[in-house]
Amino acid sequence: MTQDRRFTREQLYDFCMKVFAKLGCDEVRSSIITDVCLEADMRGISSHGVARLPRYISYMENGSIVMDAEPELLFKTGVSAVYDGHHGVGQYISKIVSEKAVDMAQKNGIGIAVVRNSNHYGIAGYWAEQIMKNEMIGMSSSNTAPLVVPTFGKEAMLGTNPIAIAFPSYFQTPIMLDMATSVIPRGKLEVYARRNQTIPHGWAVDSQGKPTDDPVCVLNNLKNKSGGGIVPLGGESTTFGGHKGFGLALMVELLTAGLSLGESSSDTYKKNGCISHFFMAIRLDLFGDNHAILNHVNHITTEIKNSNPSEGHSEIFIHNELEYKKREDSLLHGIQIDNPTYQQMLQIGEKFMISLG
Amino acid sequence: MTQDRRFTREQLYDFCMKVFAKLGCDEVRSSIITDVCLEADMRGISSHGVARLPRYISYMENGSIVMDAEPELLFKTGVSAVYDGHHGVGQYISKIVSEKAVDMAQKNGIGIAVVRNSNHYGIAGYWAEQIMKNEMIGMSSSNTAPLVVPTFGKEAMLGTNPIAIAFPSYFQTPIMLDMATSVIPRGKLEVYARRNQTIPHGWAVDSQGKPTDDPVCVLNNLKNKSGGGIVPLGGESTTFGGHKGFGLALMVELLTAGLSLGESSSDTYKKNGCISHFFMAIRLDLFGDNHAILNHVNHITTEIKNSNPSEGHSEIFIHNELEYKKREDSLLHGIQIDNPTYQQMLQIGEKFMISLG
Repeated sequence: MTQDRRFTREQLYDFCMKVFAKLGCDEVRSSIITDVCLEADMRGISSHGVARLPRYISYMENGSIVMDAEPELLFKTGVSAVYDGHHGVGQYISKIVSEKAVDMAQKNGIGIAVVRNSNHYGIAGYWAEQIMKNEMIGMSSSNTAPLVVPTFGKEAMLGTNPIAIAFPSYFQTPIMLDMATSVIPRGKLEVYARRNQTIPHGWAVDSQGKPTDDPVCVLNNLKNKSGGGIVPLGGESTTFGGHKGFGLALMVELLTAGLSLGESSSDTYKKNGCISHFFMAIRLDLFGDNHAILNHVNHITTEIKNSNPSEGHSEIFIHNELEYKKREDSLLHGIQIDNPTYQQMLQIGEKFMISLG
Repeated sequence: MTQDRRFTREQLYDFCMKVFAKLGCDEVRSSIITDVCLEADMRGISSHGVARLPRYISYMENGSIVMDAEPELLFKTGVSAVYDGHHGVGQYISKIVSEKAVDMAQKNGIGIAVVRNSNHYGIAGYWAEQIMKNEMIGMSSSNTAPLVVPTFGKEAMLGTNPIAIAFPSYFQTPIMLDMATSVIPRGKLEVYARRNQTIPHGWAVDSQGKPTDDPVCVLNNLKNKSGGGIVPLGGESTTFGGHKGFGLALMVELLTAGLSLGESSSDTYKKNGCISHFFMAIRLDLFGDNHAILNHVNHITTEIKNSNPSEGHSEIFIHNELEYKKREDSLLHGIQIDNPTYQQMLQIGEKFMISLG
């Protein structure tokens, strides 16, 4: 078996920047796409790291991503803003729009900024965390390509619609929840398909809406829009609460596309991506003494962390704890890149005549 | 088998008001507790309707609910408020605090109000819906008694911590998600226990954190705090995303108890309930033309509603659709009360010398 390779952040950063430059992307935009990708790889979320390069490259080459588009502010109040992304670079748009939310929160306590006609913005948690750095509760959501079937349905009408919430605290690692509202993200199907493995019943349904263990069939059906897809968090029926995951995904549709008058997930990726995002920033001192709250959040979280683990487990993990530790390891010992991704990078390097490291 | 009985809203309202009066509860408080209970029963959420009376009565009798307590405003800005409920009636407190959120949103676009030292506030959706009636996005959350084990844990450290979001729209029925962040609420265990039925694997774990199908054992363990409990939405492991439900429950702890410096779920119900709530109101016109947004939300939701159902299902249900139809039926044909609840009411009636209808 081929081992994972490790690269320094600088090596990968340099490689990505050169790739985006060859595609005609300016330094500001290239730098923010690269930063978001590498944050994902450093945390072990490899589906959203440099493994995404081929997809970004193809969207840049076919004009689905409009390289020099600037987000346009359509409407604003002291606590809210609505943008049109004009099909620009998702991460560049998200930086501007999420910073607007922070700026409003700094002035008026809370800021909500939404944008339509954007593109893939990387891991949702990146943006929630950027907001949190200002001692604010950070929230970020996005709709996506249609991949998820509603409860009792058989057509993929919803995105994997992530919700990320970052909560400031004195806890030992930054507390952040970053979750698809589906039972799994698409990347997980791709991993199982590549390995020729079956998937557990309860992850996806076939074109008739019946449970299936065949990831290749699900991916093909999604590609051809012939029905089926991933099921919401809670599964394909109501027995284990699938309607709850469906409901969370619906709320994400409404907060992103609904408020920005953007395309619903099922209408995305026709000509352009047409993805919508939602960002919210809430200043912690809106609720009194910052220090007391940071301390109390730590107390609540530590109580849970230190409660007794079940048989076969040694420890309870708070959200972002594992990712944060992985990130520290990546910075110390290099970022792990698996072999399929490395092979992709070699191909990209060859195509653009860029050497890796 | 004994059939369910139907009562008019007036009959049940009158009965509850008389019970609360006998307990020394004033008319304002009695009326809001009763309204919230009946809204639950009308929607078919019988676990949160008049079936709750014995629990409310016992808390009122033992002083766990302080009948005449007034919520105290501890801290405020133009968009935020923090209250101490001083162990008063949960529904009375929630009315005052959620109306404060609406009031702030009316003036400044958004309002977030949190409260500690409250008591059970009924269905979370009631409060989200009240906010929505002002053409605002309404959100309501609460922590609860400790009932839910964290992923890889075996102690119930979290509440069933509901999240309710009500979204204004021109859709045929009001759109509202009202969900426990656990796979099931406690009431469902109680129903299976009463019927001597086993529960599906994947709902709860025993004192060692192992899956169990015995609802009586789980309820006893919860009562005696001997370990185990309900599992988070997504199940007891990470395979189907149990860590996501755990994360949502954690976020509810932080938004409710964290921001209000209240007790975490695991520290509630020691002397008093000490429950914390979170209410958020967001004016829809913060995002531009109200009419266009209401319309677009309807468009997105109707697209999903009208997508093809899977085999064996005739229709996809949007959140609150079934409850709303049930409510209309209840108003027309009477509110259904199951036999165990009816028997409880007879006992209560006998105790307080109140006749039912």
